Order: sequence, then structure tokens, then C-alpha cells
Amino acid sequence: MKIDGRHFRSIWRDADGGVSVIDQRWLPHELRLVRLPDRAAFATAIREMWVRGAPLIGAAAAYGVAVQMATDASDQALSETCAVLLATRPTAINLAWALADMRATLAALPVAARAAAAFARAEAIADADVEINRQIGRHGLVLIKAIAARKRGGRVNILTHCNAGWLATVDWGTATAPIYHAIAAGIDLHVFVDETRPRNQGAQLTAWEMKSHGVSHDLIVDNAAGHLMQHGEIDMVIVGTDRTTAQGDVCNKIGTYLKALAARANGVPFYVALPSPSIDWSLRDGLREIPIEERPSAEVTHVQGRDEQGRVLMVQIAPDATPARNPAFDVTPAHLITGLITERGVCAATAQALAAMWPDRARQV
Amino acid sequence: MKIDGRHFRSIWRDADGGVSVIDQRWLPHELRLVRLPDRAAFATAIREMWVRGAPLIGAAAAYGVAVQMATDASDQALSETCAVLLATRPTAINLAWALADMRATLAALPVAARAAAAFARAEAIADADVEINRQIGRHGLVLIKAIAARKRGGRVNILTHCNAGWLATVDWGTATAPIYHAIAAGIDLHVFVDETRPRNQGAQLTAWEMKSHGVSHDLIVDNAAGHLMQHGEIDMVIVGTDRTTAQGDVCNKIGTYLKALAARANGVPFYVALPSPSIDWSLRDGLREIPIEERPSAEVTHVQGRDEQGRVLMVQIAPDATPARNPAFDVTPAHLITGLITERGVCAATAQALAAMWPDRARQV
Repeated sequence: MKIDGRHFRSIWRDADGGVSVIDQRWLPHELRLVRLPDRAAFATAIREMWVRGAPLIGAAAAYGVAVQMATDASDQALSETCAVLLATRPTAINLAWALADMRATLAALPVAARAAAAFARAEAIADADVEINRQIGRHGLVLIKAIAARKRGGRVNILTHCNAGWLATVDWGTATAPIYHAIAAGIDLHVFVDETRPRNQGAQLTAWEMKSHGVSHDLIVDNAAGHLMQHGEIDMVIVGTDRTTAQGDVCNKIGTYLKALAARANGVPFYVALPSPSIDWSLRDGLREIPIEERPSAEVTHVQGRDEQGRVLMVQIAPDATPARNPAFDVTPAHLITGLITERGVCAATAQALAAMWPDRARQV
Repeated sequence: MKIDGRHFRSIWRDADGGVSVIDQRWLPHELRLVRLPDRAAFATAIREMWVRGAPLIGAAAAYGVAVQMATDASDQALSETCAVLLATRPTAINLAWALADMRATLAALPVAARAAAAFARAEAIADADVEINRQIGRHGLVLIKAIAARKRGGRVNILTHCNAGWLATVDWGTATAPIYHAIAAGIDLHVFVDETRPRNQGAQLTAWEMKSHGVSHDLIVDNAAGHLMQHGEIDMVIVGTDRTTAQGDVCNKIGTYLKALAARANGVPFYVALPSPSIDWSLRDGLREIPIEERPSAEVTHVQGRDEQGRVLMVQIAPDATPARNPAFDVTPAHLITGLITERGVCAATAQALAAMWPDRARQV
């Protein structure tokens, strides 16, 4: 998508072949573009959330392997790099998926051929993500158009949680792809943006995306969506996913589950934008089987923002030494989900529907 | 309750007769005690949330009338003072209740007798609040003891939202009264404290209360409670209320409804600590009839905290000029509520049960 009229992806190769990303920790206050020179830098960038969002994490891991291969393409380096990058974050399946793909691709090749092949494969993974999201946008647009038609051209109000925007992917975003397609189609649309504590990716990233693209929006606190749904102010919910099981349980940013409960209680359709690389075909029961990352308590006791002098800093909101729990994701059971918007079309959140959509991938159930 | 070993109420008369409060905007970073010298100061203190919490708002309004009566006890001053204070915040019924009580009490008296009577009545309202909360604590303790018994002495995990602590009342708190009673009774108890965006009363006030009284606790973001309930980590929820209708619909801090939905979905008992002055006997359908305050958008786009140099300041978390919606309360329908913990005992959230508990107050239904 565009920043001040210039087209960006969230990760890219510079003219000299190096790989750069937007260091998203400083948005919306500063646009910092940083080069990731080696494996360690990629690991830090993923662990400390310079880059985040399941699809982007997958692409970043692939590029991380490629950058390492350019220095040392030995079997040992390949193995170690995959291990180091895999250990950065536990929940998003895309990380494991992309690393397994890179490893399988490269291990079969002679060492001398690996660097070039690795960059080509990383590039292909990134391009595939862009195309997947474009297709999600196309299929999601049909849903939005149907609501617009039912409202006879009245404003369509969409709630989204966290940032499943282009910043969370290579381009387009997952949950935002239908929104960007709807804007392009001239649909009168308004987005309610959950701020998404503790890291405020909604306030910092999604609100910035909406503003950058001129999408009408309101920021709300995570507590507010239920009230808005009770009063008919939300027509549909679209969120992303970090991992979805073969039976359609969706693991996504903490708080997604609460919004799904409110949507169900108020008859609001709840959709998940689901790129197929986020499906973990090996799992069924998301609540029991998906590992939930517990992040540092300082993310709860402190908040980052910009002071009146323009400095970006952390402020402490709780008493000194307040203990905090910080689970980063939750699982929304499939039965609360109206539909999954995938690159192949919209389907029910059931094992049968997913298997029918990916007969090549689904295991015998 | 005590601060550093010294007993405090949240509002009190000083030795010279003036009325002071804790300016809660600076907690937990600074304990600022401020004198409220006149009607305008009380109006500002309520509107700008130096004092907050439905019971404390009621008591503060009563003291505000008394302070004004000491200067000018005319009919006009009485009428204007009640109007000015009533206009400060729309949702908590206690404000209207206390002002109606003061007005009825004072209008019947000769002007010269009003100041002394006003202080006496304000004092009585404050004392009644303390006693009501003590009784809520006593009745809530029975519920906590039952859970402790069922867990055979295992830790009882209680979730609370916002601050319905002693800072929200004159003393004891509503939702916290059972907690303080349980601690005194030696029950092994742990409190999960919702931070409660946008103003973070959980992080700033409830966490501070828990720390001050040595209650084991964890701060969590508002998004996290559903996940904890899914994993059996919460045994009961206790929240306060700003206004409860005659049929048991509970209006409380924004986000309460989402926690009630999660409690219902996960079989966690959801209790509301309900002092009877918070009941609005004139209303039935809370969702349609209770006015919900919309507060400034800056509360959503900015967060207050303390920087590394110890300065308390606001930081901006969203892009410049981000539009925000800020409903301050939501309504939890009665059917989601396990029970109401009142000063007369625990009852179901139904018109019948409330009428049976207050046959003198309930209207014909």
C-alpha cells in the first residue's frame, strides 16, 4: 500500500540486495525503515515485534534464512538459523510453516546454490502472500457488498481488532483487504478500530493505515465493542488469525474471543480473514492444542506513546512492581465464527468445509 | 481503609469544617489531598473525575450542597446547586438520588437551619454508604467461602473490572468489600484486576488498593479475561454498578458486558455488588433507558502515566487527529448476572427478587 503516495511493502529487498523492513514499534509517530543485516537481527526483529502479524512473520523468517544463506549456506547454518528463528515466537503457525518450506527447499540443493534459491523462495513466499490477500479482499468484498445492499447504500460499519492490515502482511493485509477493496469499489464504509491493548496495534497501526488510505474510522477502547453492538452500530466484524485449526478454531490477538462472544450475542456476523498458510492442519481443538505466548508484564504495566515535545517514550500506568499476566493471544471456538474468508472463497468454520476447500491439504478426519 | 497505616475515607471534613477528597487523577503515582472550597470545585471534581465511582459521586454531591449552604442557603442557591451538580455526569443514579435527598431535606427547613442540617445529612449519607458496603462485604464473604470450600482451600480467583473499591465509595468499596472481608477471614484469594481502559481505573486505583492491603493480584488488560476464563483461571467475577434497573439490568463501566458474556460462556459466576442507592426503581430496560455518558475522545487517544523521571504526563498513542468514540458505560442484561450482592443479602437479578428484597421501594410491576 502507499505511504505519502509512495508504494511500500512491509518487507523488501533494497537495490543492493539487502533486506529492509518498517520498524513498526515507532508507528504512528515515526516511520523508521531499518536494514536487517543478519540472522540475529531477524530474530530480534521478530521477537521484539519490529515486525509482527502472522503472514509478515512468516515472510520475515524466510528472508532471514536467505540473508544467512548469503553468508554461510552450510547444513549446520541452515539448521541453526531455522531453530533460532522458530524460537522467537510460539503462536503464529506461519513462522513454522515458512521455515519448514525454506528448509525443505534448500536442504535438497548444493550449498553453492542455496543463497540464490533462498532469496528466490523468500520472494515467492512474499509474492504469494500478496496474492492470497488480494484474493481474500476480492471474496470479502462480496460480503460487504451484500451488507451495503441490505442497508440500501447506508454506511457499512466494520469492527476490526488488532492490526491484520498490510503492515501485518507483505501487502494488502488480511482483515483489511476486503476493506481496501470496498473503498476502491466506492462503498460507504466506516471502520471501528479496537485499540488492542497491551501493545495498541489498533491505535498505532490500524488507525494509521486507515488514516493513510482515507478510510473513515473511529478508534475505540477494547471494552467498547459490546456496547456498540448492543446498539446496532456494527454490521460485521473482520479479524485476522495467527493460527487456525483444521476444525476452524481461530487463535488471534488477545481479546478477539470477547468480540466474537459479543457478536454472537447481538447477531453481528463475525468473519475471520484466513490465508491458508495460517491453517495448522495438524491441530483440531484450538483451545487445548495451540500454545499461547505469555509476553513480558511490562507490556501491561507500561504504555508507549508520544509526549507533547514529540518524544516517543514509555509511561508506567500501574503502581511500582505491580504483577501482571500477559497472554498475547486467545482462541475463538469455531462455533462463534460466521465464516472464514480465504483466498479460495468464503467457507464455514468447520472441518468439513475446510477440507472441502483444501482437499489436497486436509488430513483424513 | 488505610494508606500507610493511617485510616482514610475518600471524602471527609477537616478539623476546620472544610471538605477534602483524594484527587484520584494522580493515583497511583501521587497521593494528592485537596480541599473543595465551593460548589464550582465540587462540580469540577465530579465532572473531571477527581472523585468517581457511583457511591462516592453521591456522597460528594451531598457535601457539595452542604458547602454551598454554608455560604448561601437561599432557595435559589439550593436549586442552582442541585442543578449544577446534577449536570456533571449523567449515568450514575446516586448523583440524582443524593441531590434529591438533600433538596427534600433542606427545602423543608428555614434558611438559617440549612447549613448545619446539610452537613449532618451529607455525613449521614456518607456513613450509610460505609455501612451498606460493610454489609455487602459480609454477604459476599459467604459466596467466597462457598467457593473456597468447594476448592478445598485452594486459591479463590476473583476478577474485577474498573474500581469499585473503597476509592469509589466512602469506604470499603462495593465489589472489593467481599474481598477485604475474605482477606480478613484468612481465605487464600487472588484478584485479577482489569486495567479498564480508557482511564485505567483498574491499573491506577484497584491495583493500588490491592497492593496497599496486601491482596495477591495480577493486573491484566481488558482483553485477557475471556482467555483466563476459558482456562479455568477465574472462579468468580465481582463488579460494581453505576445504576441498576428494577428488573436487574446493570449499568457499569464500559467493558463489564464483555466480561459478563465470557463468564456466562464459561460457567463462571458473575456477581454485581449492588448498594441499594444504585437501584433506579423508575427504570426497567437498562439497554433502552439508561443514558450512557460519551466522554472526550482524548481519553482514548491518550494515556496518562509516569515517565522514567517520575513525571506524571499524558502520551498520545494514536496518529494525530485520530477520531475516537468513548462511551463510558455499558449495560449488562439481567439474564447474564448470577446474583446481586446487596446490603440486605444476595438475590437474583430479577424484578421479583429485587421487589421481594425492597417491598418498600419497588413499584408495582
